[in-house]
Amino acid sequence: MNLEEKSAFAIDLCQLAGRKARGYFENRQELNVDQKGAQDWVSDADRNVELLIRDHISESWPRDGIFGEEHAATQGQSGFDWVIDPIDGTTNFVNGIPNWTIVLAGVADGKTQVGVIHDPITHETFAAIRGGGAMLNGAPIHVKTGVGLDSGTVAVGYSNRIDARNVVPVVQALLDHGAMFHRNASGALSIAYVAAGRLLGYVEEHMNAWDCLAGQLLIEEAGGIVEKQDADEMIRNGGRVITGTPEVFDTLKKIAVSAWKA
Amino acid sequence: MNLEEKSAFAIDLCQLAGRKARGYFENRQELNVDQKGAQDWVSDADRNVELLIRDHISESWPRDGIFGEEHAATQGQSGFDWVIDPIDGTTNFVNGIPNWTIVLAGVADGKTQVGVIHDPITHETFAAIRGGGAMLNGAPIHVKTGVGLDSGTVAVGYSNRIDARNVVPVVQALLDHGAMFHRNASGALSIAYVAAGRLLGYVEEHMNAWDCLAGQLLIEEAGGIVEKQDADEMIRNGGRVITGTPEVFDTLKKIAVSAWKA
Repeated sequence: MNLEEKSAFAIDLCQLAGRKARGYFENRQELNVDQKGAQDWVSDADRNVELLIRDHISESWPRDGIFGEEHAATQGQSGFDWVIDPIDGTTNFVNGIPNWTIVLAGVADGKTQVGVIHDPITHETFAAIRGGGAMLNGAPIHVKTGVGLDSGTVAVGYSNRIDARNVVPVVQALLDHGAMFHRNASGALSIAYVAAGRLLGYVEEHMNAWDCLAGQLLIEEAGGIVEKQDADEMIRNGGRVITGTPEVFDTLKKIAVSAWKA
Repeated sequence: MNLEEKSAFAIDLCQLAGRKARGYFENRQELNVDQKGAQDWVSDADRNVELLIRDHISESWPRDGIFGEEHAATQGQSGFDWVIDPIDGTTNFVNGIPNWTIVLAGVADGKTQVGVIHDPITHETFAAIRGGGAMLNGAPIHVKTGVGLDSGTVAVGYSNRIDARNVVPVVQALLDHGAMFHRNASGALSIAYVAAGRLLGYVEEHMNAWDCLAGQLLIEEAGGIVEKQDADEMIRNGGRVITGTPEVFDTLKKIAVSAWKA
């Protein structure tokens, strides 16, 4: 399997999808927005951007599997599966906040092999290949070094799939450690920022595979630490996500585990 | 006093300053960053962008006063004072997170008369004139209507000027009301988003005048509610900021006051 080719394809496709999504964003007064659950939204843009991505995958890699947030799975025969989040940060998107991304991961052998997180507003494309490093617009990126929690910022995420109030003790503990916290409502964008050395870590009690696989590979390839998970299990059920720089990861894991078991 | 002329000048100047700041942002590996206090940073970019803004004000309006975050005040003789935040969101700026703004307010008679918040990354310029409405890139903006806390997002801010942990009961209460919370570390940008109908409100226990005066005018002129303050007193000491849409303001005020007195 040529991962370079898969990655180049994924980068190109996320940028194409980003242009389409940005068109919807700029005309969002015409969007049809539906509610999937409490504070959980979906729009035409999510559905149609995912269809665009699916069409291009099927055309280029007809034997690969496809899993996406908004449409039923396509089982593959190649052993390589694509995992799509057409718009990560839908709430921001429908409200007009320019923090949302296109996310695409490629999984084989229970591991994410390639991952792309593309921000169509700032034109930043974060991409990683397993064993091949992490890049931002083609230049290598690395997690932050030499900065402890008391001089840095950690992003948190949460959703109404779990008890949202479990995020509160995480915020409390971060402040107790002298850290600042962020929540920008695009988990993938936050994780990309950890990989790029802009944040020290990201924790969320439950993410779906399409939200996190690409970003977790980015962090690993950028020299950060990610709590180990099986990618196939994440595709089936999702799970918790704990990531950080080598200096803060252990503390973040303690903070998160202690908050979430309460 | 011709407020239209003051506003056009302020918009132009923030856009000029934004281009200069963006130059620093794109070459931030060369920035000198100093620490003013715990988690409180300042860079060459803050200082030099403020000097650029001061120079242009002195040239165009030599009798006006000038108050800025990074340099000593210039007392005026005209009764009109300019209040500058050269870069709101310095932590984001120095870490490479593209959420920061240039903020300029004009104050007379104890009230903010014109306000501009400019985002040089997305090229969004939020501007308001007292009695003249609020605009985004020249088109009128309005706060959100018809959305309660259980279907919307409220942004929170905090700093180490107060006990940062006082933000925790605010987050807790927002979640108890079914709201989502944001913290993007640029208070001015968050407040501009409230004015543009992208967020339902913004609360912070202590802001300085340069962080909030422009945004508070934007919200008032966009149909939102702002806890009343005297602009001159804010210039001297800063103070708490509670803003929101008419539907959520009273609840936000109760939440904030209860959290901060604890």
